[in-house]
Amino acid sequence: MIQHPAFTVEPWSVRECRLHLDVLAQTESVFALSNGHIGLRGNLDEGEPYGQPGTYLNSVYELRPLPYAEAGYGYPGSGQTVVNVTNGKLIRLLVNDEPFDVRYGTLHEHERVLDLRAGTLTRRAHWSSPTRGEVRVTSTRLVSFTHRAVAAIQYEVEAVDRSKGVVLQSELVANETVAYAGDDPRAAAVLESPLVLEENVPAKDGVAIMVHSTRASRLRVAAAMCHEIDGPEGTRVEAEGLGDVSRVTVATRLKPGQRLRLVKFFSYGWSAQRSRPAMHDQVVAALAAARLVGWEGLCAEQREFLDEFWAGADVVVEGDPEVQQAVRFGLFHLLQASARLENRPIPGKGLTGSGYDGHAFWDTEIFVLPVLTYTHPPAAADALSWRKSTLPIAEEHAVQLGLRGAAFPWRTINGEECSGYWPAGAAAFHVNADIADAVTRYVDATQDTRFERDTGLPLLVATARLWCALGHHDAEGRYRIDGVTGPDEYSAVADNNVYTNLMAQHNLRAAVEAVTRHFDRAQQLGVTPEEAATWRDAAAAMFVPYDERLGVHPQSEGFTEHALWDFAATKPEQYPLLLHFAYFDLYRKQVVKQADLVLAMYLRGDAFTPEEKARDFAYYEALTVRDSSLSACTQAVLAAEVGQLELAYGYLGEAALMDLEDLEKNTVDGVHLASLAGAWIALVAGFGGMRAGQGRMRFSPRLPSGITRLTFGLRYQGRLLRVSITPTSTTYRLLEGPPLTLTHYGQEFPVGGKPVTRPIPKAPVPELRIRQPLGREAAPRRPD
Amino acid sequence: MIQHPAFTVEPWSVRECRLHLDVLAQTESVFALSNGHIGLRGNLDEGEPYGQPGTYLNSVYELRPLPYAEAGYGYPGSGQTVVNVTNGKLIRLLVNDEPFDVRYGTLHEHERVLDLRAGTLTRRAHWSSPTRGEVRVTSTRLVSFTHRAVAAIQYEVEAVDRSKGVVLQSELVANETVAYAGDDPRAAAVLESPLVLEENVPAKDGVAIMVHSTRASRLRVAAAMCHEIDGPEGTRVEAEGLGDVSRVTVATRLKPGQRLRLVKFFSYGWSAQRSRPAMHDQVVAALAAARLVGWEGLCAEQREFLDEFWAGADVVVEGDPEVQQAVRFGLFHLLQASARLENRPIPGKGLTGSGYDGHAFWDTEIFVLPVLTYTHPPAAADALSWRKSTLPIAEEHAVQLGLRGAAFPWRTINGEECSGYWPAGAAAFHVNADIADAVTRYVDATQDTRFERDTGLPLLVATARLWCALGHHDAEGRYRIDGVTGPDEYSAVADNNVYTNLMAQHNLRAAVEAVTRHFDRAQQLGVTPEEAATWRDAAAAMFVPYDERLGVHPQSEGFTEHALWDFAATKPEQYPLLLHFAYFDLYRKQVVKQADLVLAMYLRGDAFTPEEKARDFAYYEALTVRDSSLSACTQAVLAAEVGQLELAYGYLGEAALMDLEDLEKNTVDGVHLASLAGAWIALVAGFGGMRAGQGRMRFSPRLPSGITRLTFGLRYQGRLLRVSITPTSTTYRLLEGPPLTLTHYGQEFPVGGKPVTRPIPKAPVPELRIRQPLGREAAPRRPD
Repeated sequence: MIQHPAFTVEPWSVRECRLHLDVLAQTESVFALSNGHIGLRGNLDEGEPYGQPGTYLNSVYELRPLPYAEAGYGYPGSGQTVVNVTNGKLIRLLVNDEPFDVRYGTLHEHERVLDLRAGTLTRRAHWSSPTRGEVRVTSTRLVSFTHRAVAAIQYEVEAVDRSKGVVLQSELVANETVAYAGDDPRAAAVLESPLVLEENVPAKDGVAIMVHSTRASRLRVAAAMCHEIDGPEGTRVEAEGLGDVSRVTVATRLKPGQRLRLVKFFSYGWSAQRSRPAMHDQVVAALAAARLVGWEGLCAEQREFLDEFWAGADVVVEGDPEVQQAVRFGLFHLLQASARLENRPIPGKGLTGSGYDGHAFWDTEIFVLPVLTYTHPPAAADALSWRKSTLPIAEEHAVQLGLRGAAFPWRTINGEECSGYWPAGAAAFHVNADIADAVTRYVDATQDTRFERDTGLPLLVATARLWCALGHHDAEGRYRIDGVTGPDEYSAVADNNVYTNLMAQHNLRAAVEAVTRHFDRAQQLGVTPEEAATWRDAAAAMFVPYDERLGVHPQSEGFTEHALWDFAATKPEQYPLLLHFAYFDLYRKQVVKQADLVLAMYLRGDAFTPEEKARDFAYYEALTVRDSSLSACTQAVLAAEVGQLELAYGYLGEAALMDLEDLEKNTVDGVHLASLAGAWIALVAGFGGMRAGQGRMRFSPRLPSGITRLTFGLRYQGRLLRVSITPTSTTYRLLEGPPLTLTHYGQEFPVGGKPVTRPIPKAPVPELRIRQPLGREAAPRRPD
Repeated sequence: MIQHPAFTVEPWSVRECRLHLDVLAQTESVFALSNGHIGLRGNLDEGEPYGQPGTYLNSVYELRPLPYAEAGYGYPGSGQTVVNVTNGKLIRLLVNDEPFDVRYGTLHEHERVLDLRAGTLTRRAHWSSPTRGEVRVTSTRLVSFTHRAVAAIQYEVEAVDRSKGVVLQSELVANETVAYAGDDPRAAAVLESPLVLEENVPAKDGVAIMVHSTRASRLRVAAAMCHEIDGPEGTRVEAEGLGDVSRVTVATRLKPGQRLRLVKFFSYGWSAQRSRPAMHDQVVAALAAARLVGWEGLCAEQREFLDEFWAGADVVVEGDPEVQQAVRFGLFHLLQASARLENRPIPGKGLTGSGYDGHAFWDTEIFVLPVLTYTHPPAAADALSWRKSTLPIAEEHAVQLGLRGAAFPWRTINGEECSGYWPAGAAAFHVNADIADAVTRYVDATQDTRFERDTGLPLLVATARLWCALGHHDAEGRYRIDGVTGPDEYSAVADNNVYTNLMAQHNLRAAVEAVTRHFDRAQQLGVTPEEAATWRDAAAAMFVPYDERLGVHPQSEGFTEHALWDFAATKPEQYPLLLHFAYFDLYRKQVVKQADLVLAMYLRGDAFTPEEKARDFAYYEALTVRDSSLSACTQAVLAAEVGQLELAYGYLGEAALMDLEDLEKNTVDGVHLASLAGAWIALVAGFGGMRAGQGRMRFSPRLPSGITRLTFGLRYQGRLLRVSITPTSTTYRLLEGPPLTLTHYGQEFPVGGKPVTRPIPKAPVPELRIRQPLGREAAPRRPD
């Protein structure tokens, strides 16, 4: 856990002023660079020491066996796991034959800066070797947003004191040693050396190329590098390629003050189909384009791309510099994870680490895509297009489960289910409604009719069909969905999970509407008016259990009759509970890992009265232990909605600082994209009170005491809005696009050329006392 | 599946008149011999061909890793699996250097007979080698009921035509090749060669000894053999021992009509603690005792032991020779599985095969022990003493699960949980109430006060404590047991399973009564009057859900609101369902693998009115697919109780012929002890209408049309009763012990020196139409 202030608080960058080797692995995740296609962990240039080496290409995975102590029908036999591909960011330095290694000699200074506007990671080191060879090293690294296949590093060494021999070794290295955390020897074997060499062409004529393929999944990965070298006369360059290593060696002698500068361009490509020669040429071509632009050009394009993003997406949080930094850091990582997806998934950790095996989950649709939909909509479309591309697999999965329509996987890279524990995997069918929710949100926000026809409609139809196969009418005519798992992973396989049922209802209604708008296309999908009628009927009859005695919604039918978890007997070190208690124990008691019914109140707020929201929120606050990073942001939104602003503010802090403060102690495995998205959600949907749908964007803003002004940008139906909230009023500005009607506290108003300012009504005093489980209280946020 | 009539129908034996190699593995199970300590599959003397070689010692197991695709807290990391120990039944024959192998040459005759009164397996073969060496071979094998550590074989070869050279090789062989059915290479590796040689002493001075130990579980296994040889002059004997083989070779020349006769005595011992020399001496001593008695003596003692058993336990079924044979076959296997347990478990397959890894389950307490309790009570006491001996492990397991008292394992050999799938393993807590039920049944039947104090009370107290930790009172004061799995494995992790709740209620009440009777001993166990009061209170408030709308009990809360399984769409080849449908699919629908609520109506008949029984039985008949061998017998009992006598008769046939006709196609893995016990239960509790408890034995006899007379013996409270039922009357005879009061159709009557005959009232006409799921109809039984 990052307990000391590893990073300084600055509005537009994340700066580490000293190297802390004890949190090296965490900083590798925080400083990871990516464009959604290539991901480079923030490993030191020289490769060692490292927490976890990491170079990823979106969707390059290896298959690994999934073993079971007792097999069952339909269990996936193999899973996918992200592969650490050829490392192109490696530049080793030797000073008078001594390798530059921060663990030896004297590190006078060491600084790393992630610049959120430049899109670069810069490192400055001042080091003396054990034999007192003193150098300054400066490197700047980027993964290009504008050249999808390209990354680049500018590396400079300066001799500080006397003249010295300096050697740089710039490498491509495949099959690096990666620590494997599991206990399955077969999986470890798979991951030990996943890449089989096909070609290693040394950089004799300037460009080095290595082509590998994965052993079982048969994916071909190509990497190439070339260099621009600027050093004193007599600088010699050599190249060699052997086995899994390609190396360019630059040797020179630097007088004091003299510098050796190397720019390394490297490119990647992968394919399940294209041949070795085709992949070879592809990466060479990418390098050619990058060299044409040059280092300065790449940096300029990078900044330009980010300028445009920030112009629309920036969030300004006045009064809380930590949250200010964190929300920009989060938006930056969301953009990194999605900018150049092009029909690939957004994994839970993006491309910043190997956590969760590199899998994508429902968090993408429910936490990440809403942010992208209103800040960088093309990325949301890309991620949903990926889901659409996996529809045949999901349809096959549904058939295997005895269902109809599509059953999307709980966790996956290539679209096939990888969950090895079905009660918290395949049974979590809500992922299908979550995808539908992301589709309708995107279509509502963009009015992208072509997307709706080609991508949205097939997804909505297939998921609506699933709900009709999963549910049934009982004798009282209620439409029940039994034996499924909702978002809360401390309950499983329950009847009529309120979240699932309400999201399925939304899914069914959205499918009916989409079919009505695109009936010709729907007919091609085999939809008849009769089928659409069954969807309407199931949605209308959807059963939402309610506990009359307590006056709250049970999370699932019967939930409120279960025993309460004994929080008083639970010790602080027994959290997260799932590491210290059996699922058996957790499932049968009232204890909630993460917002479930509370998430339903956010996403299906229309299905609850304000009084129900207040009572339900109070009830579930007392049960929710937040053992998941997907919880705090949703609790923030509902806390704000029911008037618990200071509580909401505490939750905002948790969501926003998840990775910068390593709150869940697993940032080592990659950043928590959903929680980073959650910080934006807590601000915009929480304090901004923003809800959108059915062509209308509504706001009910109200700030907690620590934030003096909150300003954020939103893209909606071709407009760019900027909303600025103070404790007493809110100003709505239309920066781009034609006038539109907004809603402020239930009152509609038009906004066009001129900003509109509306007062914020006095906050009502919440009636219910809110408390969290003993020992899991929300920490109030006190910005300095 | 044994589709042809593999066995002839005879009252006291199971005879195979021709060798059918296609069902060799099944016949090895049927012809297995055991005394509960040693188990020998019915492998051919010469070892090959075989379906599965098998020599077992009760509780000799190896540990094997249990792998998980996704790990969870409290999952067992390793399981136990029964080991094929040193094979002592091997006797190879060579005729003129040609090995006797039924696959070669000409097998003129081949007969095997399991004699249920002699307790022997006899084989007669008449064979010509490919070079026309013609011999007759007769072997008789027994596993001694009177000498726990001893088995013996008498083997005779007779030259039929011309004079020929005959060689016998009598062996002990360890680490035979055993086919492994799973897909875990690590488990396969464990089982490939499980025994590590410690000592191999050849039979230079008459006795050969081999000592091995298991690799991971560190159990020491000793085997010894010695021989009596009777052959023509010039017969030579040699002995050698090398590696995992010990061999005694007997070579002779037989003229036509001459015989070579060999009696092989072999003995076994195992220990987790005793030293190699101690084990060596132990098996030598066992042989000495056996030789003293001699072959004829062993055979005489065997018959005497069985005579005594049959005198009390025999069941006579007039009118149905198949069932007659099957019920005796079943009783014989029950005795074989339990006669010499001495503090060891009764596995689901006894010691007849490696099915279920050799594990013991709840079937022992609920199906096997009731039969033993009324026919051979010492064996029931032994099995429960084993449970008692594992109490410390079960208490530790309870602590691990966050509970109190004892949580007995779902499947085990040594007392530790081996279930690799908790929803159908650790969550099936009813096993604890099942143990308590067996305890109270045994104590009621034997009035064994010492057992109750020393063994019963600790078991009842520990299990009662478990139910108090598992359940809780809800706001209405009902005592709920949530999130557990009942007997039906097509539902799991449900709230208030009626079977579990009623059995837990029984358990709690039994604990209160036992504590009252033995308060001094209970105090030593820490029981206070306060604690006993909580048990009484929980039992009194136990929640038994009821569906008022349908007028039936839901198997678990909410069960009757689930969708009905689509039987019409299920193809015959899709049974058993668990091999063709996901647990997810099965759990959420109304489909029942095996009697669950129906079993509750049998074991807790007092908790249901006759009308409820009739309605519940009809309801669950329509949902029960009998994919488990534990179902038909219970359905038979309730069918008889509600007046569906012909249906009960059909189910009796299924239970009784499970192994003789290989109905579930897995007799290859061992016999189905619980189903064999179930045949007795169907006859005695079904057609005899026998229920016992609270010191009273009650009968409501009524026969189906195919059975003309049913007679069975029962041991109860020191008496031996014999009950003989005809279509019109029942005669009760007291063969041993003082007079007692019985109940016939609710009317009490004394029975003493003279038989009492009572008329059977006219059968009421059942009102409800009973049907089974489409395609899973009960086959009516039509005895020829």
